[in-house]
Amino acid sequence: MSEHLKPAPEDQARVSEEALRAATTAIFEKMGVPADDAALGADVLVMSDLRGVESHGVSNMLRAYVEAYRSGAYNPQPHWTITRESPATAVIDGDNGLGIIQAPKAMRLAMDKAAVVGVGAVSVYRSHHAGAVGHHALIAVEADMVGLCFTSPSPAVAPTFGAEARLGTNPIAMAAPAAKHPPVIFDVATSTIPLNKVHLAHRTGAPLLGGWVAERDGAPIMTPSAAKPDGAYHLLPLGATRDMGSHKGYGLAFLVETFTTMLAGVRPYGLEPETGYKHFFAAYRIDAFCDVDVFKAHMDETIDWLEATKPAPGCARVLYPGRLEDEVLRARRAHGVPLHKEVVGWFRSIAAELGLTPIETL
Amino acid sequence: MSEHLKPAPEDQARVSEEALRAATTAIFEKMGVPADDAALGADVLVMSDLRGVESHGVSNMLRAYVEAYRSGAYNPQPHWTITRESPATAVIDGDNGLGIIQAPKAMRLAMDKAAVVGVGAVSVYRSHHAGAVGHHALIAVEADMVGLCFTSPSPAVAPTFGAEARLGTNPIAMAAPAAKHPPVIFDVATSTIPLNKVHLAHRTGAPLLGGWVAERDGAPIMTPSAAKPDGAYHLLPLGATRDMGSHKGYGLAFLVETFTTMLAGVRPYGLEPETGYKHFFAAYRIDAFCDVDVFKAHMDETIDWLEATKPAPGCARVLYPGRLEDEVLRARRAHGVPLHKEVVGWFRSIAAELGLTPIETL
Repeated sequence: MSEHLKPAPEDQARVSEEALRAATTAIFEKMGVPADDAALGADVLVMSDLRGVESHGVSNMLRAYVEAYRSGAYNPQPHWTITRESPATAVIDGDNGLGIIQAPKAMRLAMDKAAVVGVGAVSVYRSHHAGAVGHHALIAVEADMVGLCFTSPSPAVAPTFGAEARLGTNPIAMAAPAAKHPPVIFDVATSTIPLNKVHLAHRTGAPLLGGWVAERDGAPIMTPSAAKPDGAYHLLPLGATRDMGSHKGYGLAFLVETFTTMLAGVRPYGLEPETGYKHFFAAYRIDAFCDVDVFKAHMDETIDWLEATKPAPGCARVLYPGRLEDEVLRARRAHGVPLHKEVVGWFRSIAAELGLTPIETL
Repeated sequence: MSEHLKPAPEDQARVSEEALRAATTAIFEKMGVPADDAALGADVLVMSDLRGVESHGVSNMLRAYVEAYRSGAYNPQPHWTITRESPATAVIDGDNGLGIIQAPKAMRLAMDKAAVVGVGAVSVYRSHHAGAVGHHALIAVEADMVGLCFTSPSPAVAPTFGAEARLGTNPIAMAAPAAKHPPVIFDVATSTIPLNKVHLAHRTGAPLLGGWVAERDGAPIMTPSAAKPDGAYHLLPLGATRDMGSHKGYGLAFLVETFTTMLAGVRPYGLEPETGYKHFFAAYRIDAFCDVDVFKAHMDETIDWLEATKPAPGCARVLYPGRLEDEVLRARRAHGVPLHKEVVGWFRSIAAELGLTPIETL
């Protein structure tokens, strides 16, 4: 997250991994989610917080999920249907389940197929928010596979030259194993920033930086400006302007939509909202391409070589995708997860309301 | 291509598709390339020119290929070896062949696998320049498949925060069929611009725009500046600066490198130049996911809806990836391919040198 959007230390409290898992699991169960699924959903959220991806962790997402379960928008006990299948592929109708719980299962189906034929590719529709998709890609790494995950949420991004939001932030994630280094985790929206940075800037009074958003009429805002409330902007595709390559960010969002949505046999959310959020999971079994040890050794060498790049003026170091996530994970496992005090307050009020034990801070 | 980099009409001559194919095929044959391969290489180059991708067509690339064949860097009669294979995967040692000739064959191998199990994925190493990778992805569309193609050339792009080029421009291409609309063709470098825009700006005296390149010390140049000669810059990852998402462009280049290079069992070019350029081809058989007619109808609807987006101020229209390529293709098939007069001069001098019939202009 951009440094200027982080909460001040005096606004934070720390919570242990165990306490956060227990509180989150209990809330999911109260929403009618079966125990195994509740623990799985809590795992996805808490691992996001532990890796520093607060935008997709408990504080930012759990409230929205609770509201959606309560309104009936999410089905707490979905029964998914495989609508088509081949040795390397499957399409799943998600029966309006929550994406963070369905995604790890769909990734495991892709991995089962990759175990047999080398590659597995699974598209899922009628699902909902998938959380930090890098988490799901990372599951493939356990089995010495490369994992790929895309997801298509509701429209927020204006196409290059456009004045209306059409595609979602449509993130792309990949995970791959190394030997001595922590696994590669790459997980980014194909827009310049995710939508919640706009909310956060407005809430905290921090400015929106140049290239982050467009006016409602589609004109990119290229200098820092005070954040207006939610809905005052469209997000810009990665690249920000046509001259700097926004058609590339837009095209990457189109690529994601093709795999998540058109291959699933349905239409984009903006055309057919009842098809929900769509996801795509692929697993590539490394030993169907080369020796696993060779792959991991080359990944280590590549990471060493990238991180040895001479830094540009004013920059401390060059990183590979996954380095920061690992550093934050180790720190938070040791010292707890920092939550905004307002989030801790929400946990306590929902616990009281649902008859649960209140969460403890460290 | 950015309008300000295009040659003036008075500097151009037009050549028919047929004349360009014949002249290019004949030159490849004189380099020792077998007749079928020569015609295939000419097809890739000429189709790039016909689609308006001059940067990867005859004028920009053929001279470099001729030099590489003459120096012995490229093998005109390579015999590739499949080093590993599974139902959905293969890895190919390209025996130093030219990528534009090997890529269509590798894509067809991926398609053969997808025909059987639903997905095919093929990595190729010890190969060379692959041309416009969208062309290869598009081959899959003939068989009602979605095609994906990545390629990793030599280093030109500095990682985010870095002052040395490490990864290549590592492009990503996807092609997918529609019914009434021309196929989707998405084909972009994961850097803000390709390297040849720097050459072209220097040759023509046009400025480099903000966000295109970094100084040699890694500092991004964010305002328009006069182009210095080749080698004066590093390319920037898509996103240009960390605040605008350059870590996303850098990570996408890393993703491409993982599929082209590490899965092929070799190291990046910057660590092991003798492994050459690497490529990755994947084909996804649409009817292994959903009905082909449904897919194409949804693609048409999506294209209609995206192109109906209200334009931003000063913008004429919103496009989908593939629209401009189709418009240029139809115009050039009707009126010939515009070549810089200097390029026509080169065709005539190489023809004289090799004892070939000189190319005719329209």
